[in-house]
This record gives sequence, structure tokens and C-alpha cells, in this order.
Amino acid sequence: MSHTNKAKNLTIAYIGGGSRGWAWNLMADLALDGELAGVVRLYDLDPAAARANETIGNALGRRSDVKGSWKYLAVPNLQDALTGADFVICSILPGTFGEMQSDVHEPEKYGIYQSVGDTVGPGGLFRALRTIPMYVEIAQAIEKHCPQAWVINYTNPMSLCTRTLYATFPGIRAFGCCHEVFGTQALLAEMLGDLGVQAGVERHEIQVNVQGINHFTWLDSATWQGVDLVPLYQKFADKHSAEGFESKHDGNWLNSYFASAHRVKFDLFRRYGLIAAAGDRHLAEFMGPWYLKSPEVARSWKFTLTPVSWRVAHKKELEEKRRKLVAGTEAMKLASSGEEGIRQIKALVGLGDLVTNVNLPNRGQAPDLPHDVVVETNALFGAGGIRPITADRMTPAVRTLVARHVGNQETILEAALTRDSRVAFQAFVNDPLVTTDPADSRQLFDAMVANTRAYLPDWEK
Amino acid sequence: MSHTNKAKNLTIAYIGGGSRGWAWNLMADLALDGELAGVVRLYDLDPAAARANETIGNALGRRSDVKGSWKYLAVPNLQDALTGADFVICSILPGTFGEMQSDVHEPEKYGIYQSVGDTVGPGGLFRALRTIPMYVEIAQAIEKHCPQAWVINYTNPMSLCTRTLYATFPGIRAFGCCHEVFGTQALLAEMLGDLGVQAGVERHEIQVNVQGINHFTWLDSATWQGVDLVPLYQKFADKHSAEGFESKHDGNWLNSYFASAHRVKFDLFRRYGLIAAAGDRHLAEFMGPWYLKSPEVARSWKFTLTPVSWRVAHKKELEEKRRKLVAGTEAMKLASSGEEGIRQIKALVGLGDLVTNVNLPNRGQAPDLPHDVVVETNALFGAGGIRPITADRMTPAVRTLVARHVGNQETILEAALTRDSRVAFQAFVNDPLVTTDPADSRQLFDAMVANTRAYLPDWEK
Amino acid sequence: MSHTNKAKNLTIAYIGGGSRGWAWNLMADLALDGELAGVVRLYDLDPAAARANETIGNALGRRSDVKGSWKYLAVPNLQDALTGADFVICSILPGTFGEMQSDVHEPEKYGIYQSVGDTVGPGGLFRALRTIPMYVEIAQAIEKHCPQAWVINYTNPMSLCTRTLYATFPGIRAFGCCHEVFGTQALLAEMLGDLGVQAGVERHEIQVNVQGINHFTWLDSATWQGVDLVPLYQKFADKHSAEGFESKHDGNWLNSYFASAHRVKFDLFRRYGLIAAAGDRHLAEFMGPWYLKSPEVARSWKFTLTPVSWRVAHKKELEEKRRKLVAGTEAMKLASSGEEGIRQIKALVGLGDLVTNVNLPNRGQAPDLPHDVVVETNALFGAGGIRPITADRMTPAVRTLVARHVGNQETILEAALTRDSRVAFQAFVNDPLVTTDPADSRQLFDAMVANTRAYLPDWEK
Amino acid sequence: MSHTNKAKNLTIAYIGGGSRGWAWNLMADLALDGELAGVVRLYDLDPAAARANETIGNALGRRSDVKGSWKYLAVPNLQDALTGADFVICSILPGTFGEMQSDVHEPEKYGIYQSVGDTVGPGGLFRALRTIPMYVEIAQAIEKHCPQAWVINYTNPMSLCTRTLYATFPGIRAFGCCHEVFGTQALLAEMLGDLGVQAGVERHEIQVNVQGINHFTWLDSATWQGVDLVPLYQKFADKHSAEGFESKHDGNWLNSYFASAHRVKFDLFRRYGLIAAAGDRHLAEFMGPWYLKSPEVARSWKFTLTPVSWRVAHKKELEEKRRKLVAGTEAMKLASSGEEGIRQIKALVGLGDLVTNVNLPNRGQAPDLPHDVVVETNALFGAGGIRPITADRMTPAVRTLVARHVGNQETILEAALTRDSRVAFQAFVNDPLVTTDPADSRQLFDAMVANTRAYLPDWEK
Repeated sequence: MSHTNKAKNLTIAYIGGGSRGWAWNLMADLALDGELAGVVRLYDLDPAAARANETIGNALGRRSDVKGSWKYLAVPNLQDALTGADFVICSILPGTFGEMQSDVHEPEKYGIYQSVGDTVGPGGLFRALRTIPMYVEIAQAIEKHCPQAWVINYTNPMSLCTRTLYATFPGIRAFGCCHEVFGTQALLAEMLGDLGVQAGVERHEIQVNVQGINHFTWLDSATWQGVDLVPLYQKFADKHSAEGFESKHDGNWLNSYFASAHRVKFDLFRRYGLIAAAGDRHLAEFMGPWYLKSPEVARSWKFTLTPVSWRVAHKKELEEKRRKLVAGTEAMKLASSGEEGIRQIKALVGLGDLVTNVNLPNRGQAPDLPHDVVVETNALFGAGGIRPITADRMTPAVRTLVARHVGNQETILEAALTRDSRVAFQAFVNDPLVTTDPADSRQLFDAMVANTRAYLPDWEK
Repeated sequence: MSHTNKAKNLTIAYIGGGSRGWAWNLMADLALDGELAGVVRLYDLDPAAARANETIGNALGRRSDVKGSWKYLAVPNLQDALTGADFVICSILPGTFGEMQSDVHEPEKYGIYQSVGDTVGPGGLFRALRTIPMYVEIAQAIEKHCPQAWVINYTNPMSLCTRTLYATFPGIRAFGCCHEVFGTQALLAEMLGDLGVQAGVERHEIQVNVQGINHFTWLDSATWQGVDLVPLYQKFADKHSAEGFESKHDGNWLNSYFASAHRVKFDLFRRYGLIAAAGDRHLAEFMGPWYLKSPEVARSWKFTLTPVSWRVAHKKELEEKRRKLVAGTEAMKLASSGEEGIRQIKALVGLGDLVTNVNLPNRGQAPDLPHDVVVETNALFGAGGIRPITADRMTPAVRTLVARHVGNQETILEAALTRDSRVAFQAFVNDPLVTTDPADSRQLFDAMVANTRAYLPDWEK
Repeated sequence: MSHTNKAKNLTIAYIGGGSRGWAWNLMADLALDGELAGVVRLYDLDPAAARANETIGNALGRRSDVKGSWKYLAVPNLQDALTGADFVICSILPGTFGEMQSDVHEPEKYGIYQSVGDTVGPGGLFRALRTIPMYVEIAQAIEKHCPQAWVINYTNPMSLCTRTLYATFPGIRAFGCCHEVFGTQALLAEMLGDLGVQAGVERHEIQVNVQGINHFTWLDSATWQGVDLVPLYQKFADKHSAEGFESKHDGNWLNSYFASAHRVKFDLFRRYGLIAAAGDRHLAEFMGPWYLKSPEVARSWKFTLTPVSWRVAHKKELEEKRRKLVAGTEAMKLASSGEEGIRQIKALVGLGDLVTNVNLPNRGQAPDLPHDVVVETNALFGAGGIRPITADRMTPAVRTLVARHVGNQETILEAALTRDSRVAFQAFVNDPLVTTDPADSRQLFDAMVANTRAYLPDWEK
Repeated sequence: MSHTNKAKNLTIAYIGGGSRGWAWNLMADLALDGELAGVVRLYDLDPAAARANETIGNALGRRSDVKGSWKYLAVPNLQDALTGADFVICSILPGTFGEMQSDVHEPEKYGIYQSVGDTVGPGGLFRALRTIPMYVEIAQAIEKHCPQAWVINYTNPMSLCTRTLYATFPGIRAFGCCHEVFGTQALLAEMLGDLGVQAGVERHEIQVNVQGINHFTWLDSATWQGVDLVPLYQKFADKHSAEGFESKHDGNWLNSYFASAHRVKFDLFRRYGLIAAAGDRHLAEFMGPWYLKSPEVARSWKFTLTPVSWRVAHKKELEEKRRKLVAGTEAMKLASSGEEGIRQIKALVGLGDLVTNVNLPNRGQAPDLPHDVVVETNALFGAGGIRPITADRMTPAVRTLVARHVGNQETILEAALTRDSRVAFQAFVNDPLVTTDPADSRQLFDAMVANTRAYLPDWEK
């Protein structure tokens, strides 16, 4: 029995991903890779979505331009998905657009604006309160059915999902993946062209070392072929701080809920001296009202708030697309997703080491943050497992900003695990975005509890 | 040579204390104690104040109601004060009322109100920036002239003064003392009467365990003769949360800048489940605008903001009193100060162990906070030294509140030691009281730098 | 409901203690104290022993010289003993004299001599392997029947018994008590007379701070009325290092298996500069063959090896004494046991704080040793609980000596919990006393496993 | 200015290396590499040796088969070598063969045998006492003349040399390199052939993760193309434990002081379940007399003791060779040294990342060992610096073995820095190889101090 057999005979359990097109990214990446093969078991709370993805995935196998040989199988429950799995991918939508509407827009009634609302802020907190019990259940099922499997989390809030997995089953081999850092690498690559150093540099040529927490990560080094990029970034940030810099591949920020002109990143660099490594719309939410006092202020910083109505409309498009993919009237475009999931899987089965950023419990790799909380740093992926790479210490000011959110996350975790709304409210009022008076904060909190009631069934009234 | 000889032959260096009546507290406490004797060397930037205190102190020696035999000697410089000292007491006024006016009232122009302005908030930060260089100098002098001496700090900001001493001379034997916890013990004693448990309980009968940072301390246990006081405090806080509770010995809060009706403490307990152990006017400043949005809001919480004008007037009274004490037209009243300084000194020379709260670098006694930062916990004082007593872990929410200020203090320390106004501003905008827009925050910061310019001579413009 | 009611209405579960006279110490101490009252439930694997103690204890209640009002009740099982207990005292004999014979004397066939054989060395290891499963059972029963009770352990090996309680039930409120440090305090008191400083000093006047692990504790300070005793101890050790010093209250070491002339302690001080704070016969075992190469070498250091035959004979005496106590033909002598158990109980119910040495999981109080392992340091006992007092750092050399035994204990714990004889042997060959060749070591180990087989039923052959 | 210019314009200071052929390894490696160029400054206590190496190195530049363009320059002092250096390589011989004779052979008079005598044991200790003051001087010079340089240490005792550099100049960018792990990788590669899995595997195809301390390192994972090698190693160790396994490239152990039949490694694996990753002659010294009770015992484990006489003879051969190289009558053979120095340098200047094992202060990468001590783990080398990779926790037994030596090293460091022979002796008697009686140990220690007197000038007699 050789390692090659293993790589050609993998079992992947895909939890969720049905309601949106996330599973298609995996399908495309697997299809484009010739070194892995096996079966993907699809489990979704919406069985029809899972079955549609089964059809779509298996259709790929009949195409001549597909290198990876994979079978897709919709399964009716978690146990069937997990039993015998080598890898588990979690990418769920915790709740419906109804709760997301509350997450994002209820706070606006109190003057609290969020650009995403899935990580921190009132929205991130309530999303976490819904998600944590689901992740407790998933972790228990993994402990029971596939305790040795590698578990890849894509669901937000990333830190708390991963934290919950380990809090529930400490022996789990889980890690959380996020592509936000890649965008910053791409920006640094473009910077080299903008500053006349070198045009056409690719993002993967930019070496960075990452630390912090998901969506609030900071680079403690950035180099290109040995050149220290931090002094260049100083020039770049100074040059574009007023008007921003539009990445070619992002498109104009006015036309995209996901693009920005990086003015927040530039401002953070000029204030703190470190390169923040996530999209501006994520970064802004960690900093309180500075960049989010109002939609106008956000626009002045050249990013926009993503309304849930856009997500609803976008989902409809995806459903239409799914219909066509199932019917065969549209063929899946085979393009790399840009995610590193497949490269990580390959490294873990022995097909080449990989250094990349990842969310893991702190075992000392983030020397400024408490042990056990989930941090984002680089790690070495290989057949011997995932080994975090030790980051530098942060400056006191950045450490303090990050630690506040880490503290809130620990408070939220306790609140969710003990169903204690008093503790949840302690975290709520300590979020930088919650600048309302205590009384107003309470009113908003209670309204959001009421809106989320279906997912908080056993909380005290 | 016996221990008794030692206790009867002490040399105490008193640094500062001249401009206000602080040294008189020490004189009274020493006069009332029959087990210690020796010499007190008085050093003050204002030599006339030191000489006046010399006269006042030595006058005590001629009174028949004085038990302690002490000589007082005004000295012209730090070296003369420190050389050969067994104990050093630091109680300085960092700057003049001019800077204090800026600390407390400049922020009011931007809607930022502070009840004290000497610990956190814009005022605490600028006071720290002035004080830290002075404490670097004091620590260097102690290392040179009396490295084995015990050093007692009374100056605010307490945490950063003590932190600076250790950062400058790691082998120093310094600790910071504050009486704020005693007030909470007194309140708990009064509570027993108010709830009909037992009237007439004295504050020293209340056993508490303390943790946190100075002026933002929390009790992790409180008992009286074995009775757990936390459930009683719950009743007490519920009973008085709306109207407050007026301590007998504090007097009515409306008539005193130092009294309160404990409404802030009650509110914090009801929110966080832990007894905060400092005066309301200190606690309020750590919590941002909740209790300090405006003078009216503060009044609704039944405490008042202390204006610098009151301090100016009060100083005039003290100067008048000093004049009389020197002239002998008024005799010093011998009453215990309520400070524990003398008891601590006695414990350290072997006259009986003592458990009390104290500010020290964290060596693990505050398990939730980083090593080396200055924390306030209980400690055992004895001839073998000061040994911190391990506190419990805090709840995640309280830990997060405290850690934010600890982080700001570390940022301020770095700013002061490196004279870096960018770093100082990083701490400034992270203070919970600073809720202004970045631009306004900058304007206020710059104004306060200008007002404090005399004490920040070598900062970049 | 007041604290006084509590102290007068205690339930103590006494586990073990029947086979030897240990329970009588408790009875005497309780009888001599007028502030506590209640019931003591006696549970022993030997029910007749428990019933005899019930009779003996209740007889005390009829004596006019007894102050404490206590009922004694023999119970048939652990559950009956524990349910509702406020305090649990564990003092068991793990196994019979048969296993103890193997612990102490089997190694002698290989030239390995042990003065006690219950803490470290081959004997301590096998005693631990027998005891740990019993303590797992006790901890589980406490979690079930009285999770809030204070649990006092007297059984050896002290560190591993206490460690097992916490490893099994992390929420347990257990601590381990040992009187070895008191003997060193007594020696320091006698030293003051011997050196002509002051005659007649009592041991409780000597203030010490303790650190290390049970039976291998070291003083990091020792004072009497403020006088530093370390320089005096240097003189004392130099004066008596060659011939030893016979404590008055111990009697001549030649006539007592428990006495010594402190030559080991003096030698350790002269080598390491720290005062070791346990009896020489315990200390010697931690140091390998230095003091224990042969019975003759031990005698040259003026202490003796305790043979199990003495324990057997002594037990017979105790049984005869028990017979008489039960029959009423002998009256119990009411003398303080010298243990601090009662003082600790009184402190914990609010009858006065107490600082004493105690074995507890390391939460940072022993800054040189890993977290969670059981260390012996001072702690403050009070109504608010037991709070460890932070010790100084040890010198690198002493730390290394202690850490080796801590490491062995962790290895033994793993071996016992997983019933893994390979791991047990890893600890065995790393004990300083085991200087035999690997093959001989294996042979001895196997023989001791065979001798202990009845208590290792489920180990692989 | 691009990174390429940097790599082509390096300044390397080579400290030492003259007395033996070590510098030639570097010359060959630099000659074989086409991506780096610059100047190597040679400083040696023996100026003639440095000048000879200058000649030899510069001769290479005239050869057509040499790719790297380097100038060699002998300099008369440390300052000239260091000023402006990008890299500093330290490879010194601390003392003469006279002291080495004492290190290795004086203990034999007391029945203490050492296979190498440069890392632990009496020889390692005295070598450290000589070397540490030299490394204090080197670190001070680096702080003064090239604080930003990367400093590569090759001198033994590796851990203590590197530790001293950081203890003296905490901001130094130093790391220690050792090739011992490579030999274990080579053995694992050969194992695959021996077990019939795959012939012809190269050592660099074996992925390992390393932890522990230099020469006493352990693998916490070992894979080849995704295959876990630990179960295979179990078979391999069982198969060859009795007779050993002769590596092809090492040659027969009987004919080589550096080869072995890996019986020690196999025995350690069978006892502890982890793969030890250093040569048997190094490993044996850490384990006390097990494998080193006598030369015969060592031979029975199929390795030999390296006598200093061999080193003396070998040096003569090298001097003869040097003479020929200088004269041009012999040409240097250009073969890769097998060291990773050049690959590390290339990674640090941006010519490709590298994961390899390295000695660095523990910042958390070795979670079982104290912070700040020098540990050997993997690290990622890149233009952003060297970032340690977090290792797994060790088993309690292996951790205890390693921690004992770490403790001894800390004791030795203190002894050397404070010139305290009492502290040095504390470490001496705690070394596992020192099984002599205290009196004999003292005699040996004193003799070795006398033999080393020239390098311990300011120690108290």
C-alpha cells in the first residue's frame, strides 16, 4: 500500500455548500487536478441542493477536459457523510436570509452600520450564537464517525467556528481557511508595478508572514525575491491614501460589493505601521465607527456596505445557474477557485509541502495572544500534519486592538455554550461598533434575539 | 544585631509630598506607632516645602502624645535622600495645575468628561507621558544609591509608575499602594448593617481577594467571618441600584468630590456578576461614556467630576494650614491616615505578617493578564518579602475590559520611553473615553501635547 | 444562617485511617478545639477498624476535658461517607505490608536502598501505580457525591495522589498536607539557641516560604522576627556538618527510624545554597545513591532505613492499643497532633486566616515548574478558599533536580492511567536511585510488578 | 537596487575555521553555487591559518569549474572581520588539544567514558566553560560592528554557544546549524530499501519534524511521499536491534570514529517509541552509562570512542593538505559539504524558501521546554527571516530526559557567566555520565579545572 493509492482513493465529506455555489469551487478545483481521485459525499440540510450538486459533479466526470476522477454522492445525514471520511469540508449557511437581514440591517436602525456583518459587530455576534451550537453538533459527529479526518472550515465567523470544533472535541484535526490574505498579496504584486519596480508580478511570488485573527490579520513581513516590501508599501500608501488604489482584478469598488480602493488598509498602515491583510470591508468592522459611521463615511473610504437584498438576488441567480447545470444546458466553467483547499489536501497526503496562512488554536505561534484561542498565522502543511509557524510579537497597539476581539470571541463562546444572554450582552456592548447608549444597546440586542429566536430555542426568555 | 535594632533605626526617603499634605499622613502614622523609629529624609522639587515639612515633623518629636521617635531632615537632592535608605516613598505631583487643567478640562471641549483624569482617559495618558520620564530618573537613582531599598509608590497613574520603575531597574523592590479597595470593604461592612445581618462591622473584618489593575480592581471573593458576601451583595445592589446607597463615612456625594452613591458599582455588578472594588469616579473612567457622557449623566449616577479649580483652592487651604503648622499656631491632629504604608513597613521589617492588596509586576498572580505588566492583587507581606497571592481567573468579559486598559498602558509606556507621538496617539484613540472622530481626536491630542510641551521637551514636533 | 452555625455543624468524611492510628490524631485535634462541632463519618476497607474508631471517637464525647462536640459514625461504603460531606480526609494504606515489603526490600537485592520507599525510588513508583487507580475511584465518587467538599489528602505519594484527584475531576477542591516542613522550622528554632541568638524559640515563630515538591521542598526565605536566618544557617551547617546536630525533640537518630542528625540537609545547603525542608530520610531518596549507597553510607550520614518489619511490629502495637481504647481500659491522650488539618478547616470555614505550606496544582505559584503538576508552596487559607502564594524562582541546579522528579511523576501518572508497563519502566530507569544496568533494572522491575500483581490486575502481562 | 544585487554582493565574516579544514567546506559550497557572490573575510586566532585559507580560497577563483565569484581576505582582528558583514560564520576550536585531552580522557581515570566529549558529560561541561566567555566577546563585537548580520554558529557545544550569543546580545540574529539530523534522514532512506519498500531514495526526500536539543533531537514525524515512516521504523528497529544496521555511506563502524550500526538509536526507539535523530555516539552521551559504561560496552553497541590522539593525527594530515593546497600542488576537490549553510544563506537573501532544522531560542516552538533556552526544531528560512515551526509535545519520559540536560545547560551558563565553580560543580554532578561518588566527582572536577586553568583565568582558586 503506497501513498499514491491513498491520494487516488480519497473520501471527502462536504457539509453544507448546497444553498450557494460554494461546492462548485471544490468541483472545479478537483477537476483541474490530476493527482487526486476519490468520492465526495454531499450533505446539506436542503437535500435537493445536495442531489443537484451530485448531478452536477458527476457530469464533470464525463468531460474530456477533466483530469481528476471523482464520484459525487448526496447522502441523507451527517453520519453517512462522515463515516470513513479522510477530509471533511464545512461550509454552511447558519440560518436563513431572515436572520441575516437582522444581523446586518437591524443595527442600522440604531446607527450601527456593518459592511459584511458576519464576523464581528452585532451581526457577527448573532451569527456566532446561531452557528456555535451547529458546530458543537458537527464536532461531536466527527469525534464519533471520523475522529482522524482532517476538517477544513470555510464558514464564518471563522475563528469561532474553528474554536468551537476544538472546544467540543479537543483531538479534532481541524483548520480554518480564508482567502482574504491572498487579496493583500495581489495588492502587493500590483504595487510593484505601480511603483515601477516590476510589472506583472504574480500574487504567489509575494512572500508574507501573517498573524492576528481571521479578517483582522496583519503582516509581520512581506518580501518579493528578497526585497523588503514594507518600505515600498509606505510609499504606496502615502501616494494613494487620499484617492485610493483600484486593483485591476477587483474592478471598480463602486460596482462591486467586494471591491475597495484599499483606503482603509492605507490608513491603518499610516496609523499603526503594519500592513493589514484583509479586505477593507472586513477590516473596517473591527475598528468601530471610524470607517463605518454612516454609509456616506464608508463611501468616502471607497467601499460599500453589502445589503442582504443583494445576497437574496444573487442566490436567485445561483439557483437559476444550478438549474441549468443540472439540466445540462450550461456547462461548468473550469477555472481555479483561488482557494488553497486542494493544495492543502495534496500537502496533507504527501504530494508536496505548502506554507500558507491558516486558522488554528494558538499553541504559541501567536506569542501575543492567549493559548487555545483561534489565531491566523502561517503554517507548514505536509504529510506529517499542519505545523504552525511562529509569528513575531505585534506592537502593543495592534495587539490591544486584536486582543479586544479575541476577548469578545471568548465571551461569545461562553454565552453560546451556556445559553446565557447576560454574557452575550457583555460581549455585545464591548464590540467597537456598538457605540449606542446602554439602554439603546439593550433594545437592539433584545430585538436581535427576538429575530433570531428560531435558532436560540433554549435560551431563557 | 537584632531585628529590633533595625526597626528602631530606619531610614525613609520621602520623594515629593511637599506640595500637598501627603507627607503629613506619614508623619501622623509614624507618630502613632511605637515600634518603629528612625529618620525621614524629605526631598521635594520645592525645597521650601520640604523644609516646612522638616519643621512640622520635628515638632511632633516634642509632643508627649507621640509614640514614634523620628527625625525629619530636608535634603537638597535625590542622591542625599536615597543613599542608605531602607524605604523610599514616592508621592510626587507630575507637573503643575496647569498641565492638570489640560488633562481634565481640555477634553471637555470635545465632549469628553473625566471624573478624575489621572489614571486613564486623555488626562491619564498625558499625566503618564509626563510622569514616566520622572520615574525613569527615580529608578536609575535608586539602582545607584539604594538598590536594596523597599520602594513604595503612591503616585498616579499607579500602574504605569510602578511599571516604569521595574522596566528601568528590573531588580527594584518596588510596590504600589492604593486605598481604593478599602472603601469597598467599608461598603461591604455597611451592607451587613443595611441588610440586617450585623451592625457595626468594621472594614478590616471584611476579607476580600482582589484582582485586576489599579482603580479597576475586582473582588474574586468577599467574606465576613466565613459568610460569602457575594449573594448578599446581589440583594444589596438590587435594593439600591436605582437610588444608590450613601455610605455614612463618605458623607453625601453631592457635597463631596470623592464620595458617590455606589450606583456605578451596583450597575457593574448587575452587568458582570463581580464586585468592582474602587470608587465610582475611578471605575466610571474605565468604562467609556456609559457613566460619563456628560456631567448630567455622571450626576444621574450620583457622582461628580472633580474640577481642577477645586484642587487649586484646596491647595491654598493646605498652604495656609502648613503655614500654621510651621508657625506652631496649629497642632497636627494625630489620626491614622487609613493608608497601610506603616503596616506594610512593619511587616517587611518582621513585626508581623500582613495580607493586603498591592500593585506589582505580574509573575503569574493574575493568571489572565500578561506577565510583567503591573497588576493589583493581594500579597503576603513579611520579613521574607512581598509574595503575591494567586487570584482566580476572571470571566471573559471582565478580562477583556481590563486587558484593553493593560494594552493601552503598554502602548503608553512604549510611547513615553521612545518619545513617539504616533504610538501615544495609538493609545489615545483606543481609550474607551475617546469616542470622537479621528480628526477631532487628533486635534484634541495635539492641543494636549502643546499644553504639556514643557514636560515633553524632546518629543518631535 | 450564620457562619457560626456552619462551623458547629460540619460533616467530615474520613476515608481510610483505620488500619493505623491516623484517625486518632484527628480525634484528638477535634477534641481539643472548642470552635468546631459535627459528625465524622468513618469509611475503611476494613469495616471492623472503622467501627472500632467509631467507638473510640464517641467515647471522647463523654469526657469532661473534651471541648469539641463530635459524633463518629462508621459507614459501609464510600457513597455513605461522602454524601453531604463538607470535608473529606483521605489517609489510606494502598495495599498491604506484602506490597510494601516489595517496595522497600526487593530493590535491596540489587543494591538499591531506600530509607522510606513511599515517595520516589522503585518503592515510590510501585506504591504510586497501586494508589493512582484508587484515587481515580475516590475522585469520581467525590465528583458524584460531594463535588463542593474540601478534600484533604494525607496519603503518599502525596504529589501523585493529589495530581490524580485533579486529573480525574478538575473541579475538585483538594489539597495535600504534609508536616515535613514543620520539622525544619523546629530545627531553625533550635538553631537560634545553638548559635546563642535566642533560646526557647517555638517552631511557629519561624516564618518560612516553601517551594518544590512534597518531601523535596526548599525554603526560599526563612526569618525570625525579621532576622534573615539563611546566613545563620550557613554557620549552623558549617558547625555541624561533620557530626550532625541532634534535635532535642526528635531524640537520638540511632534510636528512631524517623530522626536524623540533619547531616543530609547540611550537606545539601553547602552544595546548593538553599535550605532543604524535609526530613533527611526523605531528602536522601531524591538524590540517588549519594546518601543511600548502602546502609552503612546512610548510617555515616546519621539516618537509618526504615524496615517494613518495624512497620509490621508497630502495627501490632497499635492494634493492641486500639483494643484497649475500645475496651476503655486505656484512655486516649489528648495532645495536639502537630498536623495543621484542624487549623486549615477552621480557616476555610472563616475562623481565621492561615498561611501554611500545601500541595496544590501549579497555577503559577511555582514559576519554575510546569502548570498543573502538584507543587508544594505556601498558601493563604481563608473563607474565600485556598490561594497559593507565589514563590521565587529556584536556582538552575535545584530546579533541575526537582524537575527530574516532576517529570518522572508525570510519566508514572501516564503509566498508571493507561496501564502501560513500558511507560512505567521509562520512569523507573530515570529515577536517580536506579543506577543498575538496564538488564538488572528490568529484572527488578518485573519482579516488583509480579509482587504487586494483585493491585495491577489489568496490566498486560 | 534589486535583491539580485544583494545576493551578488555579500560580505561573509568567517570566525575561526583555520586550524582545521572547516573553512574549505564553505569554499567548496560557495564555489559550486552560481547565485551568490561577494567577499569572505577570514579571521582566526592563528593568522597564518587565515592567510593560508585566503590563498586557497582565492585560487578557486581562477578555476573554470567554479561558478561562484568570491574573494577571500584574511583580516587581523574581529572588528575588521565583522564591520559591514551580512553573515557571520562562527566555527572556532575553543582551546587546544591539551584541554580536549582533559575533556575526553581525564574522566576515564574515574571510569567515565565519553564517545565525543564536546556536548555533555564532563568534557562538554568544561568545553562550555571555556567557550562561553569567547562567545560573550563575539556577541559583544557583533552588537557593536554588525548588529543586523545573520550569525551562523557551527561550534560545539552548540546549544550553549547559541544561548550565550542571545544572553549577551538579545537582538542578535543568530542560529546554530548541525548536520546530525541529516544522518537520520539518510538512515530512513536506506531503511526503505532494506525493507523492500523502495530502493534508491535520497535523504532529502525524507520529511521529518524535529524537536529537542542539539545532538539529542527526536523526530515527531517522519514521512516519505506521504507514507508514515514510524511503523516502518518499528519493523526496522526490531529487525536490526541485535546486530545493528550498517549504513552504506557511513562505512563500517569498526573503521570509523564517526560511524555506528545505529544500535543505540534502535534501542532508544524500542524503549521510548520516538526516533532519536543524531549519531549514536552523540546520543549515547546523553543517556549516562547505559551505552558507555566501558569501551567494551560501547563496542557491544557498535560504536567507538573518539580519542584525542586521532584528532591530533588528523590535524597533521589537514596541515599537510593545507600546505599542498597553498602551494598549488593539490587542487581542492569541489564536492558539496552536505551542510545546509549555503542553502540557508540563499533563503535568507530571497533565493527560495527552505524548511530545515535549526538551533534557536525557544519562543514556544518547543512547547515542552522553557522559553529562551536554545532548542532544535524545524524552521522556515526566507527573505522575511527565520521562523521556528511549532513541534508537538514530547512524551513525559522523553521530555524529562531532555529537560535534565536543558537544566544542566542553564546551570553551566550561570556558572560560566558568574565564574562560580560551586555552580559548575552542581551541573557536573547532575550529568548522567557522572556516576562517581561525590568525593571522586570533586577530585575529577578539580583536576579538570586545573587542566583548563589557562581558559578560566579569573575563577576563584
